[in-house]
Order: sequence, then structure tokens, then C-alpha cells
Amino acid sequence: MAKKKMNAFYAQSGGVTAVINATACGVIQTARANKDKMGKVYAGRNGIIGALTEDLIDTGKESAAAIAALRYTPSGAFGSCRYKLKSLEANRREYERLIEVFRAHDIGYFFYNGGGDSADTCFKVSQLSESMGYPIQAIHVPKTVDNDLPITDCCPGFGSVAKYVAVSALEASFDVRSMALTSTKVFVLEVMGRHAGWIAAAGGLIEEHGIPVVVLFPEVAFDEAKFLARVDALVKKHGYCTVVVSEGAHHADGTFLAEQGTKDAFGHAQLGGAAPVVANMIKKGLGYKFHWAVADYLQRAARHIASKTDVKQAYELGAAAVKMALKGHNAVMPTIDRTSDAPYRYKIGMAPLAKVANVEKFMPRDFITADGFGITAKCKRYLMPLIQGEDSPTYKNGMPVYATLKNVAVAKKLPAFDLK
Amino acid sequence: MAKKKMNAFYAQSGGVTAVINATACGVIQTARANKDKMGKVYAGRNGIIGALTEDLIDTGKESAAAIAALRYTPSGAFGSCRYKLKSLEANRREYERLIEVFRAHDIGYFFYNGGGDSADTCFKVSQLSESMGYPIQAIHVPKTVDNDLPITDCCPGFGSVAKYVAVSALEASFDVRSMALTSTKVFVLEVMGRHAGWIAAAGGLIEEHGIPVVVLFPEVAFDEAKFLARVDALVKKHGYCTVVVSEGAHHADGTFLAEQGTKDAFGHAQLGGAAPVVANMIKKGLGYKFHWAVADYLQRAARHIASKTDVKQAYELGAAAVKMALKGHNAVMPTIDRTSDAPYRYKIGMAPLAKVANVEKFMPRDFITADGFGITAKCKRYLMPLIQGEDSPTYKNGMPVYATLKNVAVAKKLPAFDLK
Repeated sequence: MAKKKMNAFYAQSGGVTAVINATACGVIQTARANKDKMGKVYAGRNGIIGALTEDLIDTGKESAAAIAALRYTPSGAFGSCRYKLKSLEANRREYERLIEVFRAHDIGYFFYNGGGDSADTCFKVSQLSESMGYPIQAIHVPKTVDNDLPITDCCPGFGSVAKYVAVSALEASFDVRSMALTSTKVFVLEVMGRHAGWIAAAGGLIEEHGIPVVVLFPEVAFDEAKFLARVDALVKKHGYCTVVVSEGAHHADGTFLAEQGTKDAFGHAQLGGAAPVVANMIKKGLGYKFHWAVADYLQRAARHIASKTDVKQAYELGAAAVKMALKGHNAVMPTIDRTSDAPYRYKIGMAPLAKVANVEKFMPRDFITADGFGITAKCKRYLMPLIQGEDSPTYKNGMPVYATLKNVAVAKKLPAFDLK
Repeated sequence: MAKKKMNAFYAQSGGVTAVINATACGVIQTARANKDKMGKVYAGRNGIIGALTEDLIDTGKESAAAIAALRYTPSGAFGSCRYKLKSLEANRREYERLIEVFRAHDIGYFFYNGGGDSADTCFKVSQLSESMGYPIQAIHVPKTVDNDLPITDCCPGFGSVAKYVAVSALEASFDVRSMALTSTKVFVLEVMGRHAGWIAAAGGLIEEHGIPVVVLFPEVAFDEAKFLARVDALVKKHGYCTVVVSEGAHHADGTFLAEQGTKDAFGHAQLGGAAPVVANMIKKGLGYKFHWAVADYLQRAARHIASKTDVKQAYELGAAAVKMALKGHNAVMPTIDRTSDAPYRYKIGMAPLAKVANVEKFMPRDFITADGFGITAKCKRYLMPLIQGEDSPTYKNGMPVYATLKNVAVAKKLPAFDLK
């Protein structure tokens, strides 16, 4: 008897990116192209929560055009969530529920599109066949602007943020350069990256365009005196400088710059950014006029300036995940395996999830200059291919055309589940 | 005897924009096309300061390709400055110096590319023929992201910021929408506009894309209770909302939100943004998780997402200024005169500088909704044409190609001048 054709579950997890929907597009289009072997693709509404609450979206209700439009749409089209499953021992109830939902909807494939925490969740799900006797193949599809997953050369989402940061820092630096004689001399741009400095590193690329730039990484403990001396030297030499500070920049004792004890009028701790702290430090220490920006969500949502390389890889990894599933793989993650920097070449590889879950990849020390304030030639060789190419969305009436799906719910078959 | 062919002086003034160099391109290309009537174009290095210090740039040393590239380059290619000439009575010395420099370099045309303060300076210079006997024709070329010059329908620089803000707010809103169930529910974006809410208004355009958005204008006194009630209602209805706050948003007593008495660990007043203040207010009052961004220079430098309409108008006004000068005009400013919203049509008009200098144009009350938190259909009809069209720069190696000119100095003929 032929093996029963199983449905797939796909969920987006954690912070979304400019290209996570391109991965969704790759998953769904590849599943559709293999409909003789794979059934429907159900997406979790708001990520794994959709699986737990049996809130499934039938992607089959979306037109081919709508699915194709995902490739050009930032954010998570099905909703994402920050929700980490505990261990099987600590919360067996959740795993039993997942199996109940999978069984009710004939789900045999689990595609989880996320970063480090999600890789861990996906790995736990991949063990369910063994531990709880339900046959499921779990494939993790990498996604994180933080670029901190191991084994894969890079993570979809990162290349586009890197491009956004490099382009924005370049543009703002041109602005400061114009004004420096009588006005702003230092521009501070805060970028994401709580633990790893990959995104901040992209700011270092503008040095190639003649811009004096100082980068503050989470990997290097902040030294105020050394930093101010560096800024002062650059301003004295060039008339201005740009500072790109990671949100994760911190003092030697581990305190984040952003948590410098800033208080509001009532004495309440103010949740602030690292950029204003650094900017005020420059004003106080050197007297230079400054401007600062905090890019926050703008950087990871900026589909309009996405890297074509990144979009392509995001799609390819989604497609590869489905192919791996159809080949019978479980507990794996498709990866980008770089084979050459210039010309840039890569292959799609496959990593065992056991080696991915809970491992963070930081900037190697030899990617950061000896003084700790810039990126090395080696780092530039790594970064440059990832920001290559533009992949503009279509515009209508001056605005990019981004898709909002119908997100039709699959009829529920089970009693409600309390997330607690 | 034929009239002597006079040279032109061109200077960029005040905060630069994504398209002020497109105006420079229009001025220089049009002057070159009329070289039988107009001599060289000398640019002031760092704006009017270049005239006072006799630090002139010979734009004739730049290739046609370099000048053409200005159309795609953000910031001020010759340097700008914040420097306002006092009245003739208060600082006669500066005007005498200007005349000395103009005379030494056969300058008969003065093109000043700036906003409200610059219009005032330009007007003073235009009076020099009469007041001090030196024949000069002064033409003001409008430029300001603040869009607050009178008579002209809009100001070059504004359309591109408006497009940046609308696109960025849309993208970030998609992000928040994806995450809202378990994470961020309110995203706050701070934009420029100290006195007028034109830029913030552009954030209101995302309502057309189904995004629940609250706009805080400098034209409407901030009412915390009313604001929180509005945010709460939107989050309860949609699950999330976006707030676009002008840096000039203020309380009824005139205090800026950004100056809410935020202090650092040492009790020093912290120069902060309005966005973190508003975000923390939401957290305290409603308990919603937030994210905030401050776009600062990124918004006005973002040539990569410039409005094609804006670039075109910036160029046309530069070209028109030269033509007006050649027709013998003085003390005027070329304007955009809108003749139709849809289809969008406009003509280039001409305004007397006496009516432009020191007049600020605020958002009309009927552009703001009755509750003060959004824009009306009339405002949308005004804004939409200004963000139309994309005009991407060329990219090389993943980065936009922006021009850096040689900026060759003209040999000085005069003794140094102390700016004091």
C-alpha cells in the first residue's frame, strides 16, 4: 500500500525580517510543485501558537499570485511569535497537544522558520517520533537578522539588514559631511544585534566609501576614553565622523550602554537606546554637535532596499527544506555553504539540528580590527557578497505593493487548548 | 557695448536633503547650456561661508558626468552651513565683504538654495544693488524637507522624506502586525519637523494600506489622556498600532515631548527624542510592549528611496532659477504652482522674495482630522502626488553610486576675512 500523503505545517518564529516571506514562498511553491508527494501546507497563525491552539491557516486558499507576492513582502505573513517550548520533561502537555493537532490534520512535515531558539524547538519536535511515537519530520529553516546561527555561512534576513545599514549609514554620512563645518560633526546610528555584532559590522563597510566610521560591537567591551579619543582623532582629521553602535554594546562589567541609568522626570528608569547615550557622551566629553538615529524595526522590515542575494537565498532555503523533507530527512536545517568569496559562490548544504540548537555564532576576532572599532579586510570579504543586488518590489501610487494574505482558517477538530 | 558676461555664485544652505544636489545639477547644467550669456558657476564651499571667506569652488572643473551624477547624490556636494546673515544695519561688514568677493570674481548672479532663513539672507543680498550700489541678481531656490516655505505648493526635499516616512512606517507596521500577539503591540516612529507637521503627515498615508496609525503633529497640543485612549482603542481593535510623532510635538504649555526632563545617571538633562518618551508613556499608561525608532538624518538623506516627482522638481527649480536670472529677474524664487491633484499637474511659477522671507507655512487645520490624530482626505490628495515615482540611483557592488566632487578651489584674490 502506498504511503499516505501527509500535510505540512509551516510556522514563522521570533522577530520577522524583510525576507522571511520569501522563505515561505519557497516552501509553499515547492510543496505545490510536489503535490503528488506532499499534501496541503498549513501555516501556524502567529507561529507555533497556531499549532498549539489548532489555529491553522490553509495556504491552499491563496492564489498563485498571492503566494508569489510573498517574495516581495516584508514581515511574517502568517504572524510570528516569541514562544519557546520547554523541554519534554518540563511541559509534556504541550508536546502531546502538538501531536494531537498534527494527527487531527494529517501533518507529517514540520517546517520551522526561525533563529536559535526556534532551532531548539524544532529539534525537540524532531524527536517526537522517537520519544512519543508520532511520525513527524522536522526541518528548521534558518532566519535571523542577527546572523548568529552556526554552520550556515549566513542567515536569511541578515544580508538585507546589512544592506540597509550600509546604505543608510553612507547616506547619513554624506549628510553630516555636508554640514560639519558649522553644525553636526558626529552622527550616531544604533543598529540591532543584542549579542553578536554582525549588523553593526555592516556599518563598517562605508569606510570603503571614504567615510570615517567607528563601530561599537557587543563582542568588544566598551572603553569610553579610548572611544572618545578615536572619535576626536577622526573629527580632527576629517571634520566629522559616523558611529555605528550595536544595541548590544556594553561596558566591561556587562552593563549595556543603553541601560546607563537614564531616568525620566519622575525618576523612573527610561528604556532608552544606546545611540543617545553614546551621542551625549561625545557631547559631554568632546563638545561636538551630534545627531543620532535608532533604526529599530525599520532596518529589518526594509524590503524596499533588500539584498537580492538575501532574497534568493531565503527562497532557496525554503525550497530546499521541502526537498529534504521529501527525501525523508528529519532534524536537519538547510544551510548556505560558501565555496568562494569573489566571485561569490555557494551551495545549499544540510546541517544536523543537534549541532545547531542553542549555539550562537559571534563575529570572529579576526573580523574586528585590533583597536576594536572597525572591520578587517577578511570581514569585508565575508560581508560584500551578502549585500549584492537589488530586488525592488513593485510600486503603485508611490508605495511598494506588499501582500496581505486572506489567511483562511482550517476548521478546528479538537477542543480548545489553554496556553496558560 | 555688449554687457559683460557675469559669473554666478551658487550655495547650499541649512539642512541638506536627498535632492538638493539635483537642484545644483539643474543650476549648473542650465548655466552650461547658456554659456554665451552666463559665465562660470562658482559654488560656495560650505554655503555662504564660502562667499565670505572667498572659498569658492570652480564647478567648471567638474566633468559633465560628475555634474550629471549630482542628480542621484544626496547631501550637499559643496558643503552647507547654518549661518544667517544679520541685517545690513547690524553687520554691514559682512555685506561689504560679499560685494568685495563678488566684484573680485565678476559675480553677477547669486543663487541661494535653502529654506526660510536662507530666503531671508537671499532677500538681503538682492537689495545690495540698491543699498550698496553693486549690481547683483539674487534668486532663491527653494529647498527644505520641512515643506514650510510659503507660496510654492511644495518644497524640494519634502516629497522624498514623505516617501521615506510612508514606506518605512508601512514596512515597520507590517512587522509589528506580525508580532503583536505575543510581543510588540505599538511601534513609535519619530520624524523631523520642529514647527510644521508636514513630514509627520506623510506617516498618516499608511492608513490607506489598512494600518491603524496615530500621528502627533506640532500643530496640535499633545493631550496624554486623549492620546493613550486612542492608542488603546486601536490596539484593542486591531491588535497593534503605529504612532508617527513629529520631533516638534509638544504639550499645551509649549514644552516639547522630547524635553520631558529625561536625565542621565548623573542627573544631567539628556537630549533625547520624542519617540522614547511617547513609547515609555504607552508602556506606563497601557502596559503594551513597544518598539521605537528615530529616523533623524536617515530620512532626509535617503536618496535610495527618493520620490521621482521630487527629484524632477528639484532639478526643474534649479534650471528655472538660472532662466529667471538670465531674463533679468532679481529678488525672486521659482515655485511649484499646482494646477491639478489628479492627474497631478503643476507649472513653475515665480514669487517675490519679499513675500517669502520669514514666513512659515504650517499644516492647514483642514489637513488634520478633527481629533487631531490623523490626516484628512484633503491632505492625502495634497501628499499623494509628491511621493509618486521611484528614481533609483545606480548600484555598484551592492551600494548606491553617489558622487563626491573634486571641489577645486578658485584662486583667492583678497585678504582673509575673519568670520568672528
